[in-house]
Amino acid sequence: MTHVLYDPTLTQTSGRFVVGGEEAHHALRVKRLTAGDVVRVQDGAGGVVECRIVRAHKGRDGWGLELEAMGPSRRVERVRPIVHVRSAAPKGDRLEAMIDALSQCGAASWSVLGCAHSVVEPRAGKMSRLRRTTEESLKQCGRAWLMEIGEPIDFDRALCASRGTIVLADATGETCNGAIGDEVTLLVGPEGGFSERELGMAQDAGACVCSFGPHAMRIETAAAAACAIIMRGARV
Amino acid sequence: MTHVLYDPTLTQTSGRFVVGGEEAHHALRVKRLTAGDVVRVQDGAGGVVECRIVRAHKGRDGWGLELEAMGPSRRVERVRPIVHVRSAAPKGDRLEAMIDALSQCGAASWSVLGCAHSVVEPRAGKMSRLRRTTEESLKQCGRAWLMEIGEPIDFDRALCASRGTIVLADATGETCNGAIGDEVTLLVGPEGGFSERELGMAQDAGACVCSFGPHAMRIETAAAAACAIIMRGARV
Repeated sequence: MTHVLYDPTLTQTSGRFVVGGEEAHHALRVKRLTAGDVVRVQDGAGGVVECRIVRAHKGRDGWGLELEAMGPSRRVERVRPIVHVRSAAPKGDRLEAMIDALSQCGAASWSVLGCAHSVVEPRAGKMSRLRRTTEESLKQCGRAWLMEIGEPIDFDRALCASRGTIVLADATGETCNGAIGDEVTLLVGPEGGFSERELGMAQDAGACVCSFGPHAMRIETAAAAACAIIMRGARV
Repeated sequence: MTHVLYDPTLTQTSGRFVVGGEEAHHALRVKRLTAGDVVRVQDGAGGVVECRIVRAHKGRDGWGLELEAMGPSRRVERVRPIVHVRSAAPKGDRLEAMIDALSQCGAASWSVLGCAHSVVEPRAGKMSRLRRTTEESLKQCGRAWLMEIGEPIDFDRALCASRGTIVLADATGETCNGAIGDEVTLLVGPEGGFSERELGMAQDAGACVCSFGPHAMRIETAAAAACAIIMRGARV
């Protein structure tokens, strides 16, 4: 499989350019790529270009990878439906595993959802590690679009600021048949569930209350399963 | 939520009986349940009975919990479709996380699938820890049926011994619409994918080759997403 480099500054459509930092270091020292090898450079916003490594150099700023585009860059459309996941945060490593899974399933964005029964609020340091997780995942799973990590959002605000159809994952809901619309805001609550007030507000806002499986699920399982079911039929 | 005790020897339909071992210890020392509290006892094979704690005692064999059934035991039917997952094993902790997720999603059984590109073969010690994971998961997610951990099975044998519709998860497949049948054997390959020979054999055996998302997925994400999509519509 062609090695993928993530470079959000990619604006070139042809010619030579340089990728530095961690991406260059990883490609050269871990993957041991050398001059002549072909890599794919992605900007995480649909831009993709195949390049050949011209040369590698190590300067004062670390490793640099001089690349030559093998043709014009392509633009890949977003996967549809566009699913914005707003979920409570599971504890510890399970949060990073959830972000990785959501990225693989094709979610467009994720924000931590503040609910009445929420118990975990990830700190700033953790949130920035999550951005790194989405970059790694983009390369692993071949997404052309980076899953966005948004700012934390409270339940009330998440309802108001929702885009497309609102889907609230709850065991009391109807079975979801997965064909919901072109853009979906998916709300997944904490392990204690949504409060009565939250369920009422969601219904008033016209949300579909949906169940995504026969049993109770942990946050990360519910989020990934619901996203996979809603994305069903999605194609790149 | 009522505390759940798992006791595979449950045969009583009424009267008093004793639960010992880890289950009793956990209920008494971690959950701090006492005489008069109500618990639910499940045998992992559909048998469920609500009981009141009569008394707790500590003898030479450890903690014992004397219970009195509050009524006849109920029999809960298996969730349908019945999904048998046969997958390659992901590395390290990801295997246990996958087993937990599959149990929550409602899979009936799981076995490690030996494929041409498999790289991980879990040892016996790990396999027995997985059984413990399914017991914990049963209690957490409210399943009446324990997800079975089967013996490792090679790809060829998995095809011959499959039950119901064979579904092979592969990026080259058609989008799966989730309505496949009442019993499904789901095959999920290693990160290197199925070999050409395996794909050919599966097609010869009449397998549905299905894609469960727009991007490449890790083993554990693919298995849980595919299971959730196939189980869609399942009800207890």
